[in-house]
Amino acid sequence: MKIGVVGATGAVGEAFMDILERRKFPIDELRAFASEKSEGLNVKSCGREWPVQSLREGCFDGLDLVFFSSGDNISREWAPKAVESGAFAVDNSAAFRMNPDYALVVPEVNSNRLPSRKNPTIIANPNCSTIQLVVALSALRPFGLTDVRVATYQAVSGAGKSGKEELLAQTHEHLHAQMRGGEFAQKLTNEPKVFPHEIAFNCIPQIGSFNENGFCTEEMKITNETRKILEMPKLKVSAFTVRVPALNSHSEAVWVTFERRVSKEEIMSAFEKGAGLRLFSQSTDTTHYPTARMASGEFPVFVGRVHQDLNDPHTWLFWVVADNVLKGAALNGLQIAEQIFKQ
Amino acid sequence: MKIGVVGATGAVGEAFMDILERRKFPIDELRAFASEKSEGLNVKSCGREWPVQSLREGCFDGLDLVFFSSGDNISREWAPKAVESGAFAVDNSAAFRMNPDYALVVPEVNSNRLPSRKNPTIIANPNCSTIQLVVALSALRPFGLTDVRVATYQAVSGAGKSGKEELLAQTHEHLHAQMRGGEFAQKLTNEPKVFPHEIAFNCIPQIGSFNENGFCTEEMKITNETRKILEMPKLKVSAFTVRVPALNSHSEAVWVTFERRVSKEEIMSAFEKGAGLRLFSQSTDTTHYPTARMASGEFPVFVGRVHQDLNDPHTWLFWVVADNVLKGAALNGLQIAEQIFKQ
Repeated sequence: MKIGVVGATGAVGEAFMDILERRKFPIDELRAFASEKSEGLNVKSCGREWPVQSLREGCFDGLDLVFFSSGDNISREWAPKAVESGAFAVDNSAAFRMNPDYALVVPEVNSNRLPSRKNPTIIANPNCSTIQLVVALSALRPFGLTDVRVATYQAVSGAGKSGKEELLAQTHEHLHAQMRGGEFAQKLTNEPKVFPHEIAFNCIPQIGSFNENGFCTEEMKITNETRKILEMPKLKVSAFTVRVPALNSHSEAVWVTFERRVSKEEIMSAFEKGAGLRLFSQSTDTTHYPTARMASGEFPVFVGRVHQDLNDPHTWLFWVVADNVLKGAALNGLQIAEQIFKQ
Repeated sequence: MKIGVVGATGAVGEAFMDILERRKFPIDELRAFASEKSEGLNVKSCGREWPVQSLREGCFDGLDLVFFSSGDNISREWAPKAVESGAFAVDNSAAFRMNPDYALVVPEVNSNRLPSRKNPTIIANPNCSTIQLVVALSALRPFGLTDVRVATYQAVSGAGKSGKEELLAQTHEHLHAQMRGGEFAQKLTNEPKVFPHEIAFNCIPQIGSFNENGFCTEEMKITNETRKILEMPKLKVSAFTVRVPALNSHSEAVWVTFERRVSKEEIMSAFEKGAGLRLFSQSTDTTHYPTARMASGEFPVFVGRVHQDLNDPHTWLFWVVADNVLKGAALNGLQIAEQIFKQ
């Protein structure tokens, strides 16, 4: 297979090339694309080094699939060109996700929406916080989903390498000040740039910008993308998204309401059998549930703390954690490629 | 006034003595109590040093009020003795909170439940995550509260000094490893002791131990204490509590459902006038909302991100932040004392 990666020097692009190797994807050629300032660099994947090049007319010729992870504008301009040149474009940006002409795919949930191998097109990769939620919700569809409320605990890696750097630099500065004087730094040299407020030792209830309705873009992505992927356009989905000083992996606290009463056995069995899921079945007084640190670097979506609401027997709570750079982005994109070409 | 502080060397005890001074509480004598291993130490408050003593029979004689912040067992044994000796006992433990014989008080919400100055008794100080929630909910009571769902983002200071030390030590260890090798420590020397998992750069969906119903003790405290304080024994309150690597101040994402439809003007006006509240009124695309870092050291309960649910017009979302050691513990206790003695 001949694969292109646009955004090859970013966090998701690097993860994509890393898992090409981990999942033994059969690579004949890898074309690594990034901005002009990265030209001359090499990237590593599948035991070889590949030179970084910038995008130019004809650059996708001969490729079977191009993975895009460079933001909405690059995708809007270049993904159609990849398709014109005969490649599938798996797009990790938001550019095509809600476009009714294109499929928005989480392979465990709606691989039936994938095109046949003969028809190259754009396939949209959902938002990270949406993917792990719908993998869990999909297992519960037989019970009749009516209402979903989700509060997120999102890691800085969702904002790319610069997000991680900002957290680490601010954390370092606070610890250094604290070691010298017992107090945190009053004013940081590493001021907030990636995040709207200081992220070190803080929680920021904003991801993206705000819509007039008071929800931020990340929250609207969860609502709209979940409805599209599950093909439930009227599903009530209400999200509250928060950036926390976790380095990697998103966690989510979820309330889900069903049409009918469901037993603990039914819901645990559904999660156990759920595609792409790993269930932590917790007993009283144990600490057997997933966390962001343990999920980092792993492929599955982890579910734990499954319990029934005390006020409404149709409502259940659970906790869902996944590596946002892997299952939330690069891995989901690669699974799409695997599905298309195994057909 | 002659005041006793039990747990004077703990984080909440120290905060209590600090705000006695900040709020100019008229102190004639301060008796600082702690475990025997702290005897011989001095604590500072109101411009003076006070020797630390251990609890013994008769130790409360002559005191007007004793603030307890040493855990359930100490309170269960010693708070009744403080009352017997003629003092009010303001108890920050969980020992008496749900006991129907004692008031559970947040002065802005139910100061009518406080005893008269002539009748010394035990007054229970609610759980930190409950206090900030009910201060916000209280302002919304005229709209008819029916359903509350809250996901918490709780700081390590809620676990006392050792909680802060564990976060800082683990964070330091990870940063040190990362500076040397580019990766976090695989195995920490500072293993989890205070928290059930590593807290540095992580989120832990457990505060306290688990009940058979699947909720942890912190979640049940929020449900039960909110009902008692608001005197709404059937109010639907469902909590999901999570420890995050914030150093101080708890944040909460809240969905609240009302009996009737409420306008944005009504809800903002209610929050603006709400006792003990400070409202951040956010416009589109600004970042004007409270965070844990900005709330630390402050007295009010901060509310922001007030917006209507898209699926259910009776439901509103908001974000509430407060210093858990101050308004969530020491300050609320001192406000109780201020109210009793100003009568």
